[in-house]
Amino acid sequence: METITIIGTGLIGGSIGLALKAAKLNGVELVGFDDDRGVAGNAKKIGAIDRGAPNLPEAVRGARMVIVAAPPMAVRQVFEDIAPHLGEGTVVTDTASTKSLPARWAQEYLPPTVSYVGGHPMAGKEQQGITNAEATLFKGKAWALVPSSSANEGAVRSVMGLITVAGAEPLFVDADEHDQYVAAISHLPLVMSSALFSLVRQSPSWDDIQPLAASGFRDMTRLASGEPRMAHDICATNRDAITHWIDRYISELQRYKELIQESPKALFRTFSEAQLQRDAFVNGVPTKRAPTVDVPSVKDAMGSMLLGGLLNSRMEKFEKDMDRQSKGRGRSIIDDDDD
Amino acid sequence: METITIIGTGLIGGSIGLALKAAKLNGVELVGFDDDRGVAGNAKKIGAIDRGAPNLPEAVRGARMVIVAAPPMAVRQVFEDIAPHLGEGTVVTDTASTKSLPARWAQEYLPPTVSYVGGHPMAGKEQQGITNAEATLFKGKAWALVPSSSANEGAVRSVMGLITVAGAEPLFVDADEHDQYVAAISHLPLVMSSALFSLVRQSPSWDDIQPLAASGFRDMTRLASGEPRMAHDICATNRDAITHWIDRYISELQRYKELIQESPKALFRTFSEAQLQRDAFVNGVPTKRAPTVDVPSVKDAMGSMLLGGLLNSRMEKFEKDMDRQSKGRGRSIIDDDDD
Repeated sequence: METITIIGTGLIGGSIGLALKAAKLNGVELVGFDDDRGVAGNAKKIGAIDRGAPNLPEAVRGARMVIVAAPPMAVRQVFEDIAPHLGEGTVVTDTASTKSLPARWAQEYLPPTVSYVGGHPMAGKEQQGITNAEATLFKGKAWALVPSSSANEGAVRSVMGLITVAGAEPLFVDADEHDQYVAAISHLPLVMSSALFSLVRQSPSWDDIQPLAASGFRDMTRLASGEPRMAHDICATNRDAITHWIDRYISELQRYKELIQESPKALFRTFSEAQLQRDAFVNGVPTKRAPTVDVPSVKDAMGSMLLGGLLNSRMEKFEKDMDRQSKGRGRSIIDDDDD
Repeated sequence: METITIIGTGLIGGSIGLALKAAKLNGVELVGFDDDRGVAGNAKKIGAIDRGAPNLPEAVRGARMVIVAAPPMAVRQVFEDIAPHLGEGTVVTDTASTKSLPARWAQEYLPPTVSYVGGHPMAGKEQQGITNAEATLFKGKAWALVPSSSANEGAVRSVMGLITVAGAEPLFVDADEHDQYVAAISHLPLVMSSALFSLVRQSPSWDDIQPLAASGFRDMTRLASGEPRMAHDICATNRDAITHWIDRYISELQRYKELIQESPKALFRTFSEAQLQRDAFVNGVPTKRAPTVDVPSVKDAMGSMLLGGLLNSRMEKFEKDMDRQSKGRGRSIIDDDDD
C-alpha cells in the first residue's frame, strides 16, 4: 500500500483526490489533512480521501508523494512543519498560483533527500471549497510543472503521472517565467475584476446603475467573487510581476483613451485587431512557434495572412461607411478628428 | 393590418422580430430592412420578419412603429433618410447603446408629428448577426426607455408593450444618466476587455503565455470578441462618459497597486469587501434604496449589517492567520509592511 498525502482538501486538493479516486489506482491510500477539521471530514465523506490525519506529521508519515494544496502564503509554514517528518525520496509538489517563492521555500525548508516539483493546475472556479470539488476540474486544462534543480527524474515522472491521471496537460516552465506569465493572464485579470466591481459599487449612483448591469458586467466582475484570501496571497507572493503588469495595463488603457478621443479610425483598427486575434486564439488558429524552428510554419503564415486580409477588407468597408456618413445631408455632430 | 418596421435585422433587430412573431400578435405585419440584402433575406428565412423592403422609404411607409436597430453611428443617417416618409403619429424607437446623441438626432431630423421614444435593451452577445438571433434574447433583461419630451403617452405605452412582449423589463431613465451608467457597467468593461487582450497578445512571450490561459482570461477578454464596428460606434457616441470612467478606473487600479505594494491587510479588506458586495449583487440582496423614502428599509439595513459582520469576522481570522505565519520558525520572506 502506497500513501499519497493531500494537504489542504478544499476545491483544488479535494478535486485532485476525487480525480485520483476516479482513476481507481490499485494499492494507493489517499490521506488528507486540512487546517479546518470539518473540511477534511467533508473530503472523506465525498470520497476525495480515504482517511483524514489528525496532524501534519501523521499526515506525511510514510507518504510517497505529498501534494500541498494550500493557499500560496501558507505553503512556507506547511513546508517547515512537514520537513522533519518526510521520508527519504518523498516527492513533494504543490498547487500554489505562484511558483518562485514556493521554490525558494522548498529549497530553504525541505530536506535534500526529498524531490520538490512545483505545480500549478490552470483550473479553478470562483466557488471555492470542498463542496465545489469535482473529479473533472482539471480535464483538458494545462498544469504548469516547475521541477527544482535537485528533483530527480523519477519524481518529475511521478508528478507528470498525477497530472495525466487528473486529465490535465503537463507544461514545463521556469518558475520566474511562470510568475510573469500568470501575472499577465491570471493575476492582472483578478485585480482588474475586483477593481471594476469595487469602483462601480462605490458610485453614489450604484442603486440606479445596477439594474442596467447585463452579462458583460457580470462576466467582467466574476473573478471578484473569488476567495479574498487567495487573491491576497497571490498578490503577496507575486507582487513585482503583478504591479509591472498593472502598469503596462494602465498604459494600454491610456492608449485606448487617446484613440477614443482622437483617432476613430485607429480605434476601429485596434478593436478589429483584438477581435480577430482573440477569435484566432479561442478557435485555436495556430500562432504558436513551431518548437524546433524559428521561421513560421506554412500553417502559421497562412493564419497570419488570413487575419491580415480580413483586417484590410474591414478597414476598407469602415472607411467607406464613415465617408458616406460624413457626406450625409446633416452636419456632423460627431467630430472625426483623424484624417 | 398594422405595420411594424425593423431597420437593421441583425442580432438585435432579428431577435426583436422573432420575439414579436413568437407572441403571435394578430393583424401585425413585420417589415424589415437591412443595408445588407442578404441579412434581410436571412431574417425573412428564419421568420424574424414577414417581408423585406427594397429601401428605407418603402420600409417605413404606413408603419405604426419603426424600430431602428442599427449601430449607434448609423442612427442619424437612418433618421434623416426615413424622416420625409413617416406618417403622422408614427412611433419611432431605436436600440442604440447610447441615448443622448440619438435623442438629439431625433429632435433634429424627425418630424414633430412623430413620437420618438429611445430604447436600449440590456442584452446581447458577442456573436453578432442574424444567425445568432433568438426570440428569448431579452427575456428577463432590463430595457432602458428614454422618451423624448415630445413623445405622447400612447407612444410610450406602445414601446413599453414591445418591451413586455419581448419578455424584458422597461426601465425609465434620463438620456444623459443612461449614458453615464452604461459607460460604467458596459462600455468601460468593453474597453477593458479589448485592452487586456491587446496588451497580452502584443507580448513577445505570447506564444509561451497562451497555453497557460484559463477560464479567467477567456471570460475577461470575451467582450473583445464583439463586433468592432459596434465598439467603435459606442466609443464615438459616448466619448466623454467613457473617458471619464477610464480615468476613474485607472485611479482604482493605482489604488490596488499601492495596496499590493504597501498594505497587505488593507488589500485583503478591499478584496473581501468587493467579494461580499458582488455576491450580494449577484444574489439580489437588496441594497437598492426604497423608492419613496430616504431611510434604508429594515431589509436593507439587515443586508448591510450582515455584510459588515461577515467582513469583521473575516478580518479577525485573517489577522490571526498572518500573526501565526509571522511567528513561524522561519524568517519572513514576504514583508508585511502595514502596521
